[in-house]
Amino acid sequence: MVLWGGRFSEPTDEQLRALNDSIGFDRRMYRQDITGSMAYARAIAQAGIITTAEAEAITDGLKQVMAEFDGGMFEIKPGDEDIHTAVERRLTELVGAVGGKLHTGRSRNDQVATDFRLWVLDAAAEVDGLLAGLQIALIAQAENHRFTLMPGYTHLQPAQPITAAHWLLSFFWMLARDRDRLAETRRRTSVCPLGSGALAGTPFAVDRAALAQELGFADVSPNSLDAVSDRDFAAEFLFALALMGAHLSRLAEDLILYSNPRFGFITLDDRYSTGSSLMPQKRNADPMELARGKAGRLIGDLTGLLAVLKGLPSTYNKDLQEDKEAVFDAFDTANRLLPVVTAVIGTLRLNPEAMRAALTEDMLATDLADYLVARGLPFRQAHHIVGQVVQEAARQQAALSALPLETLKGFSDLFDAEVIKVFDFDAAVARRKAVGGTAPEAVLEQIKAAKARVGERV
Amino acid sequence: MVLWGGRFSEPTDEQLRALNDSIGFDRRMYRQDITGSMAYARAIAQAGIITTAEAEAITDGLKQVMAEFDGGMFEIKPGDEDIHTAVERRLTELVGAVGGKLHTGRSRNDQVATDFRLWVLDAAAEVDGLLAGLQIALIAQAENHRFTLMPGYTHLQPAQPITAAHWLLSFFWMLARDRDRLAETRRRTSVCPLGSGALAGTPFAVDRAALAQELGFADVSPNSLDAVSDRDFAAEFLFALALMGAHLSRLAEDLILYSNPRFGFITLDDRYSTGSSLMPQKRNADPMELARGKAGRLIGDLTGLLAVLKGLPSTYNKDLQEDKEAVFDAFDTANRLLPVVTAVIGTLRLNPEAMRAALTEDMLATDLADYLVARGLPFRQAHHIVGQVVQEAARQQAALSALPLETLKGFSDLFDAEVIKVFDFDAAVARRKAVGGTAPEAVLEQIKAAKARVGERV
Amino acid sequence: MVLWGGRFSEPTDEQLRALNDSIGFDRRMYRQDITGSMAYARAIAQAGIITTAEAEAITDGLKQVMAEFDGGMFEIKPGDEDIHTAVERRLTELVGAVGGKLHTGRSRNDQVATDFRLWVLDAAAEVDGLLAGLQIALIAQAENHRFTLMPGYTHLQPAQPITAAHWLLSFFWMLARDRDRLAETRRRTSVCPLGSGALAGTPFAVDRAALAQELGFADVSPNSLDAVSDRDFAAEFLFALALMGAHLSRLAEDLILYSNPRFGFITLDDRYSTGSSLMPQKRNADPMELARGKAGRLIGDLTGLLAVLKGLPSTYNKDLQEDKEAVFDAFDTANRLLPVVTAVIGTLRLNPEAMRAALTEDMLATDLADYLVARGLPFRQAHHIVGQVVQEAARQQAALSALPLETLKGFSDLFDAEVIKVFDFDAAVARRKAVGGTAPEAVLEQIKAAKARVGERV
Amino acid sequence: MVLWGGRFSEPTDEQLRALNDSIGFDRRMYRQDITGSMAYARAIAQAGIITTAEAEAITDGLKQVMAEFDGGMFEIKPGDEDIHTAVERRLTELVGAVGGKLHTGRSRNDQVATDFRLWVLDAAAEVDGLLAGLQIALIAQAENHRFTLMPGYTHLQPAQPITAAHWLLSFFWMLARDRDRLAETRRRTSVCPLGSGALAGTPFAVDRAALAQELGFADVSPNSLDAVSDRDFAAEFLFALALMGAHLSRLAEDLILYSNPRFGFITLDDRYSTGSSLMPQKRNADPMELARGKAGRLIGDLTGLLAVLKGLPSTYNKDLQEDKEAVFDAFDTANRLLPVVTAVIGTLRLNPEAMRAALTEDMLATDLADYLVARGLPFRQAHHIVGQVVQEAARQQAALSALPLETLKGFSDLFDAEVIKVFDFDAAVARRKAVGGTAPEAVLEQIKAAKARVGERV
Repeated sequence: MVLWGGRFSEPTDEQLRALNDSIGFDRRMYRQDITGSMAYARAIAQAGIITTAEAEAITDGLKQVMAEFDGGMFEIKPGDEDIHTAVERRLTELVGAVGGKLHTGRSRNDQVATDFRLWVLDAAAEVDGLLAGLQIALIAQAENHRFTLMPGYTHLQPAQPITAAHWLLSFFWMLARDRDRLAETRRRTSVCPLGSGALAGTPFAVDRAALAQELGFADVSPNSLDAVSDRDFAAEFLFALALMGAHLSRLAEDLILYSNPRFGFITLDDRYSTGSSLMPQKRNADPMELARGKAGRLIGDLTGLLAVLKGLPSTYNKDLQEDKEAVFDAFDTANRLLPVVTAVIGTLRLNPEAMRAALTEDMLATDLADYLVARGLPFRQAHHIVGQVVQEAARQQAALSALPLETLKGFSDLFDAEVIKVFDFDAAVARRKAVGGTAPEAVLEQIKAAKARVGERV
Repeated sequence: MVLWGGRFSEPTDEQLRALNDSIGFDRRMYRQDITGSMAYARAIAQAGIITTAEAEAITDGLKQVMAEFDGGMFEIKPGDEDIHTAVERRLTELVGAVGGKLHTGRSRNDQVATDFRLWVLDAAAEVDGLLAGLQIALIAQAENHRFTLMPGYTHLQPAQPITAAHWLLSFFWMLARDRDRLAETRRRTSVCPLGSGALAGTPFAVDRAALAQELGFADVSPNSLDAVSDRDFAAEFLFALALMGAHLSRLAEDLILYSNPRFGFITLDDRYSTGSSLMPQKRNADPMELARGKAGRLIGDLTGLLAVLKGLPSTYNKDLQEDKEAVFDAFDTANRLLPVVTAVIGTLRLNPEAMRAALTEDMLATDLADYLVARGLPFRQAHHIVGQVVQEAARQQAALSALPLETLKGFSDLFDAEVIKVFDFDAAVARRKAVGGTAPEAVLEQIKAAKARVGERV
Repeated sequence: MVLWGGRFSEPTDEQLRALNDSIGFDRRMYRQDITGSMAYARAIAQAGIITTAEAEAITDGLKQVMAEFDGGMFEIKPGDEDIHTAVERRLTELVGAVGGKLHTGRSRNDQVATDFRLWVLDAAAEVDGLLAGLQIALIAQAENHRFTLMPGYTHLQPAQPITAAHWLLSFFWMLARDRDRLAETRRRTSVCPLGSGALAGTPFAVDRAALAQELGFADVSPNSLDAVSDRDFAAEFLFALALMGAHLSRLAEDLILYSNPRFGFITLDDRYSTGSSLMPQKRNADPMELARGKAGRLIGDLTGLLAVLKGLPSTYNKDLQEDKEAVFDAFDTANRLLPVVTAVIGTLRLNPEAMRAALTEDMLATDLADYLVARGLPFRQAHHIVGQVVQEAARQQAALSALPLETLKGFSDLFDAEVIKVFDFDAAVARRKAVGGTAPEAVLEQIKAAKARVGERV
Repeated sequence: MVLWGGRFSEPTDEQLRALNDSIGFDRRMYRQDITGSMAYARAIAQAGIITTAEAEAITDGLKQVMAEFDGGMFEIKPGDEDIHTAVERRLTELVGAVGGKLHTGRSRNDQVATDFRLWVLDAAAEVDGLLAGLQIALIAQAENHRFTLMPGYTHLQPAQPITAAHWLLSFFWMLARDRDRLAETRRRTSVCPLGSGALAGTPFAVDRAALAQELGFADVSPNSLDAVSDRDFAAEFLFALALMGAHLSRLAEDLILYSNPRFGFITLDDRYSTGSSLMPQKRNADPMELARGKAGRLIGDLTGLLAVLKGLPSTYNKDLQEDKEAVFDAFDTANRLLPVVTAVIGTLRLNPEAMRAALTEDMLATDLADYLVARGLPFRQAHHIVGQVVQEAARQQAALSALPLETLKGFSDLFDAEVIKVFDFDAAVARRKAVGGTAPEAVLEQIKAAKARVGERV
């Protein structure tokens, strides 16, 4: 059964059906579709379009359809173009011609927009919960490593010593922003298009506000033309996931690098490592490589939908059917990826000795310059002098602290015996205790803030 | 002058300079850079790192640098890698070695993040204002066309009659969402990274909260590693503009179509039309074609930055320098495009006669089905019957209202003489008066809501 | 069974398996995988690594595995990570431990690269054939409409009259370039990586050239590190399809516009039109809207893979597993779309009367300018004068030919009674007979060239 | 001066001009524009449209315009919308009204397509030459390091020892494919659209083949509608550069990693390293980080143009003006980046000791399995046993060769005293001598092939 055959003298071509039909992927919105139809049946009963008895018959029928889907018993039949057709077809089989009254004043255009918004609201909540789980795992690891020192890199070159907790928490805040974006996306998704008809609104006295409220929407769409073709919420959801993907890919890059034995800073648990079919010794960080790679895929999903939207004429166009597979793919990607990344973090073994062994005194060069600054030299000159000192140490292949004081004095008279105190990694880290700094003291505050933040939502 | 020569025995290669230097584009952040430095000078004076006199000397020098930039007198010199270097170099020329104290505890990493956030805050506000202007132009046109009827299309095929005001306002709400997104982006941009140093935080007792407040930021970044490499705000800004671009491209598509003489629904003002070098008769809607095309460009800007971010190691990496040109390009695009689109709308001539002449009775087929529904037929059957009626009319090349009642009765006994009342476009439109519907009555409410919405922000 | 358990003390986590396993999608390469393994068995037998009898046992086993797949009887078991594992596991069940000899000197890295290249070679050939079919349909329609005149638009504004055949053929050449690109992609795909091992090459005396030849490859990969991570062929294939998608989307845009009743230039067959669940009269050009929308999806597939590749370290990384779903999705999209578009073109009804009725005399303005040029006026001045004439005609709401000669003479003395001959659409079209022009005479040559071109390949 | 004012009663709005005008960027095509016009002048003279004297006057004038541009003396004036207008305006100033004859039968639509194709032909040749330079630098380095051993990684985990030459050459072949793609793009770009008019072809007897030949094109466009809107060549050029960018980003990732002191495999020359404004010790691989980042930008350029093309109606639309800035940006990016990357490679210092020191015996695990295979064990079992051996060695924190034979025998009876010979990195590498393998012997062949390949083109 198609919902629109009357006007045509020939049936649709089979190949077109294969291209056109969305039942293959939109059936996963069956719950949202049926819930929406139940609410709509009540709404048109209240508006006097159908009787209460008819509404009850429809609702009972829809409950049975839902049960069939839930139980995996629902049978897709030829002609079921999409989830809306399939449900109406089955409903009519179950309750008779009264089922044909459900679509009064409604179009698949406002129906699918309603279903999809309900679906995205759920999906965004689910991803949000998974992100919270990852945040909690990061905090837990961070709490164990407030005093663990490791090299901090910029440009992937040794920069300054940092605490491992600080490094772990840096990802917490990226995810916090991801969750903020998801929350905002949900707010904008929570707008009910039902009652917009095909494009022009409904001629029936449906109480759209009540309908929206019953379905859990915060608001009602203000313009029916916009309502049936607004896919901003889908694009936003994809963007939120694409940027989340970028964050996970950066975490992934760090974990991949740090688990290379030249670094050896971390060890992934056996359960989250994989091997090679050829090389018996291999322990690969596959999950993190996938996290990195899937960031690309998520960018593709976003780009694809934006390109679909570009240049469309007003209101609904069939092109919009391309929205769902991109969103489903991105959600499935996040949904499969996040628990694994969370488990990787939860079971990650940091190797504090290897981290500390990787600290080198040139990472204190800024502190050495600050030492000269404290003795009155403008920073820019201090920087230049210390640069020369570092070059000299490199030439001698010596640590900075191994340079004789005389040598240092050759670069500046301000050097004195106190200089040796500069070469203390723990002290250097402890000094960076301003808000957001790497010092254990500041990290303690950061952990408190992170816990408060994650608690607000979980 | 470069800020970091001491450690190197050979100068940077000239070709690398050409690739590496950002002064060519980041100089447009001079105001933000100098403002940030003034605040920083005060902050390190308060922290006791420099004296008040030194802070004043630096501030006076910076004022002069600002004046030179404002007056177009600032001279870029060889070695001025970026705006930060150029400003510090010039400052030092003006105030002597004390200028070299300004960078104490600060890195270009936190500095550029601060500058860029300040710049984006301004830019987002500017785009927001331009969007408000376009919204106002749409409302103004809509107010004149509450009773102007035109064909509403779905799939670009005749669907139902709508009011022109309703069509115009549909774009209002897209832009309203764009503005919401910009507001949220600004909220997340308004976080001050200054005081994060190169990556690990500052060892000096700088009051970061006061610094943030002075610069107008709402908050302080909570993790220095994240602070120097967080470019979420840039990606969000690009996304907000890309989606805005998609909306403008849809408006553009409609205007381009409707100004084709086969439609003839609208006429662009001579001032916003262009001609052909070869064909003397041409009047092209160039500005709207550019609006459509530039949606593609904005998608490219966004995709490019997301791809840049993907897979980067922690903290600052030079790759991040790619953030600015994409953001500048997107802003310039929006900034040049929006006033023109606003003017196009403001000067647009709607042709109500052509619009009404394009209404055809098949666009009332749904109303004809509703007529049968009112006589007790389930909608699905009514739909099927009317589909056959439409097919018959098409076969006869007759309007629906021209079919004899007998013919109609051949399809359903429910047809009676009342049916003629269905064929009234104004009545059909007026019936769709539920919230968000196309009826003049509903559109009046919509205009009120739109005015309230735009007023909140402007 | 996994191929690499020995080194691990704990089994892989189930959630990681769900994320990591590719059997869900790479099983569609079973034919390529088994074919590759058969050739490899022979190759290592020839190299003396296994005996001929072993090779035969393996080959027989592989034949049975192939038969099981072909017959839909193959059973995926827990632990079958990917198609390679599944095949080796089943092979070993069938032939015993000798099955474990097949992987000698081979890695999944070179194996999957081989499989995937074989798959893409087939896929590209299939798309090429479908494109040829669409080209043929375009030629067939064009042959019927060499003398059918229609408006040619630039900027979607009336420009000059053209022949419908010329319009149809313009798409032929876009597809011809698509096919060229596919051919080149196939050339670069036809390089055999087998024998590259995991990354460093094989230590066994495998005759790689013979192996390549047996598998139908034109060449052998010259560097093993590159061989296992080169996905250029996948990116190229995606690019070829994305650009093809852009072409189809342009064809789609034209067909959607021209089937709007304001144009009415074409009618899609009932079999390739669809209706509305609400509006009984609707006839939508769904297949072409999908063609337009899917261009966006194809752009997304390409962008996603390029972002995956960006920034990867040398040789194989797990991120590369993201290559397949993008390529499969793009192929399936093309494979489902092209037959429908071909059928749409094949069954398309052009409406020559509507097309001719849409011609207006301002589309001859260039010819009017050329008339003045023929009388000695520089074109630029002629253009300006005719522009004024057009403006005057518009002011009078008159056709150009309705302007009295006196009026014309008011603009230029060069106008004389001959001017009336300019207003002949057929003559205007016939004049454009240079190579590539719209004249029926030139189009006849174009059709010949098109037939020759399509014949070369089909 | 605009070329099309006659038909309009009001001048174009200034803001629209700012948006619309392309002179700001398309002036860089002045040489192509003028060259094209010279050829066109001769062509219309040969066709009898202008006299030989007029053609000479025009050509002389154009020569002077060219000289003004070459000398930096050309003055852009208000109204010069684009390079075509600017040149015609200036030409007319110089030679009088005869300049207005040049545009007879020509449109900016075919003119800009011609100019842009000529420009891209040059640009692609330039990039090709730069790529050849980088290839030569890679070969030169490789020749010095045929016997330098380094760890080969897959998944960034230790895999097998390889030669440094092999690693360097892996990038050679990526670039070779980039050059192939550029060559093919050039072939498809070398098609002359001139003589296509605005869309419908020229009504004049212009010899298009001669015109094409004079301008150095290989062919003539076969369909005028397609000719004025075909931007495949631009998209292809962008794709070729985007994929090249991905390759360079992979090289960059390796160089960035390997110059981190934990690896220490390479040292970038001082001239190609940069420092930090804060941290005096820093030596950053900025050029390679830019190479990595700019891969993202190039993806953005490509994506943007594809999105522009998607869904455009037939023939020329103003949206196509977006083609140039994307192509210019991508070319400039490649043009600035490649010489620097070439210099980085040319001056790169490999540190063979650090490379060899990073080899560990577990990288010979495959060879150990092959040893068991040679003693008759199926590879799959050998792999499993060696996996356990590796695990045992890791448990003992011992090198594989340090495990007593007894321990090994505990895993398999096949182990004997010969096993010690397996632990020889040079021998392991030397065994991989099949085509494309890492052995010095195979690399020598590879270098020969590379030299032959680069020689074909340079």
